[in-house]
Amino acid sequence: MSSFIQPRTPSGTLELLPRQQMVFQHMLDVIRRGYERFGFVQVETPVFELKDVLLTKSGGETEKQVYFVQSTGSLQQGHEPDMALHFDLTVPLARYVAEHERELVFPFRRYQIQRSYRGERPQKGRAREFYQCDIDVIGKDKLDAAYDAELPAIIVQIFTELGIGDFTIHFSNRKILLGLLTAWGVADTETQKLVLREIDKLDKIGLAKVQEAIVALGVADAVAAKVLELVALKGSKDEMLAALRKLEVSEPVFAEGLAELEKMVSSLRALGVTEARTRINLAIARGLDYYTGTVYETLIDAHPEIGSVCSGGRYENLAGLYTRSKLPGVGLSIGATRLYEQLAALDLLPPVPHTVQVLVLQLEEAMRADYLALAAQLRTSGLTVENYLEPAKLDKQLKYASKSGIPLAVLFGSTEKEAGTVLVKELDKKIQHEVKRDDVAAFLGSLGN
Amino acid sequence: MSSFIQPRTPSGTLELLPRQQMVFQHMLDVIRRGYERFGFVQVETPVFELKDVLLTKSGGETEKQVYFVQSTGSLQQGHEPDMALHFDLTVPLARYVAEHERELVFPFRRYQIQRSYRGERPQKGRAREFYQCDIDVIGKDKLDAAYDAELPAIIVQIFTELGIGDFTIHFSNRKILLGLLTAWGVADTETQKLVLREIDKLDKIGLAKVQEAIVALGVADAVAAKVLELVALKGSKDEMLAALRKLEVSEPVFAEGLAELEKMVSSLRALGVTEARTRINLAIARGLDYYTGTVYETLIDAHPEIGSVCSGGRYENLAGLYTRSKLPGVGLSIGATRLYEQLAALDLLPPVPHTVQVLVLQLEEAMRADYLALAAQLRTSGLTVENYLEPAKLDKQLKYASKSGIPLAVLFGSTEKEAGTVLVKELDKKIQHEVKRDDVAAFLGSLGN
Repeated sequence: MSSFIQPRTPSGTLELLPRQQMVFQHMLDVIRRGYERFGFVQVETPVFELKDVLLTKSGGETEKQVYFVQSTGSLQQGHEPDMALHFDLTVPLARYVAEHERELVFPFRRYQIQRSYRGERPQKGRAREFYQCDIDVIGKDKLDAAYDAELPAIIVQIFTELGIGDFTIHFSNRKILLGLLTAWGVADTETQKLVLREIDKLDKIGLAKVQEAIVALGVADAVAAKVLELVALKGSKDEMLAALRKLEVSEPVFAEGLAELEKMVSSLRALGVTEARTRINLAIARGLDYYTGTVYETLIDAHPEIGSVCSGGRYENLAGLYTRSKLPGVGLSIGATRLYEQLAALDLLPPVPHTVQVLVLQLEEAMRADYLALAAQLRTSGLTVENYLEPAKLDKQLKYASKSGIPLAVLFGSTEKEAGTVLVKELDKKIQHEVKRDDVAAFLGSLGN
Repeated sequence: MSSFIQPRTPSGTLELLPRQQMVFQHMLDVIRRGYERFGFVQVETPVFELKDVLLTKSGGETEKQVYFVQSTGSLQQGHEPDMALHFDLTVPLARYVAEHERELVFPFRRYQIQRSYRGERPQKGRAREFYQCDIDVIGKDKLDAAYDAELPAIIVQIFTELGIGDFTIHFSNRKILLGLLTAWGVADTETQKLVLREIDKLDKIGLAKVQEAIVALGVADAVAAKVLELVALKGSKDEMLAALRKLEVSEPVFAEGLAELEKMVSSLRALGVTEARTRINLAIARGLDYYTGTVYETLIDAHPEIGSVCSGGRYENLAGLYTRSKLPGVGLSIGATRLYEQLAALDLLPPVPHTVQVLVLQLEEAMRADYLALAAQLRTSGLTVENYLEPAKLDKQLKYASKSGIPLAVLFGSTEKEAGTVLVKELDKKIQHEVKRDDVAAFLGSLGN
């Protein structure tokens, strides 16, 4: 018994102490409530998928770093694993919609809050397990562009409720740049996509290098310059739309993109979204070819260095690998684990109330039945209440409360019982109140607010 | 493109359609709220643990059927997996408490609602992925027996709120039978444990076979008969306690068990737990040697055949493999996935409200801004609201609402706009109301209740 197994968690996972867990869980709860407020329904999928379903060679780099799963029996028999942990929530969504297509109603509006897994090499900052909070609307055959405005409206409410400071959802529409490239003589669609992929690197490598790379793709100097001028354009949404209209480009793809952007702007206003929380930013290109129209990224104004904390966009066809049906969609994802870690490191997370509001102390062991009954009564009035049930000195019990972070303690001894009173301690303020026994629930409730 | 990958989930997993997911999630929410109401704090641990931490040869049979986890890189290099998915929430709790011991406050009261994994062979009814909702109190060096009464009080509130019909928490204390066996001449503690393990099989194999098995362990016929007579005893808690007192056994282990049972009963009453929801049942032995005192099982009165839906008990030392500290505890676990499946199969799950309360239809595409603004306003008043944003005929939109299960639809065309009214449809009742535009939020709120 002298040698113990060292208790430790695998690297790349986030395990929190209870007080931190409350902050994190509060974040997940706010996200969930926000998604539900806008009429999205929850979906949950198994943590693992069959290998042939998950690894379809369409996931790019992420597919090369998964976690395979294999039972003891399968491993002992020398089999290859036939399952793997999902690396995002998009492939499971595609599989889910294709599998249950006939039982679902379209437009299908689902949210999904689950952990995903990447088989990364242990490396600082690389998460192997992380929460994603995805929201998507999937249409059958078609999906109106009006849905694209709803998602940022949801995110604005959620991030505002989280109280993490000013933030901005930057959005664009890939059709704008793709259409312009066609209009300006870059007709090859592969080259167009490569140009957008370079533009996506602006933040990282800067204007000069991006321009160089675009020219290296065979784009004329003058066109590259015009594209980059546009991409650098800043202004209100109306100014941006006016600037785009002023280009007087009749190329249909461009016109479609512009009409969709205009619809976005008017819909955001109809939804009452604060102007400052969203802006048109033509530099938002999203590297993934997966996106075909609207694209979003979300930056925390005071901390652009942490990059986008909520991204997504419009795609043409969700589940082409699994079904003949055409399923266009639009989606956004909050990387909650990463967001939590970054905000916590910057001390940007506002405190959240302790989930335990009241601790009923045990002053006299003989009065235990009184303490249990008092706690039960307080719970009936909606409070979350803990009984301290160890025989221990008052000091030790108060220390327990303050170390736990529980804000209120109730003291009730035979003296108080006789007097028909109760003592209530506000632990952070070090204030003590004497309250009538009959009024204690209402009094604690009033302190809780 | 003619050959699609067949979209399917691995066997032994539970994947639900949105309306079912709401019922299941409601169950998890009720459990979580119940745990928090009694002052338990949430803990979440990674889905995988390092192999040497998880597989300690203490988990018995379950350890032999785990899921190993291995990254693409590790697999390609021919390495052995060094992680596995947790098969319960007890080992992760032990590891968590040992790892964070110095940062935690004792008694440490945690709940944990997560999925666990068992590498079962595909077989009907065997779950490979399933939710567990665990609640435990962990003491440092000691933990008062009073904590044992709190857990069933919590479960009674939760199961009552779930509305699944009458149920009974059967409890006992292993010290009663162990002490009696000593008093009646069966002194060997290994034999004692084996006797309890046989008693645990009563439901499955019946009295005669259990008696036979106990005698085969070397227990005298008369003693076996006395034990089984006791185990078959039925009565109110007071009658059961009286019967035990009447035995006048002075063996200290028995006396301790009896005192703890008495404390349980008085504490349950102090907590206001309905008498019929708990009973002393000396046949509850729990097969696991892990338990050392109080043991619990929960049966649904009308369906004893589904077995215990919430079990647990008191244990001596949680984390002896990881730390020198002695950490006694008491815990209970609800197997939520299994519970959901069984109750759903028996049609015992009461319906839960749809998470989307209101669907705002789009009668005229030109009025889209009105619909978005109306939905935004309704959300402000606390309703969960979806906008239908596809241009579609009224019939199709109403069919969408009723197929989704959304209870209320709002119709607002130019006629209503001019009249300053709104039409509200209660879809299941097929009733339509004409409401003043200004009153619609309040009206919908009143229907929601």
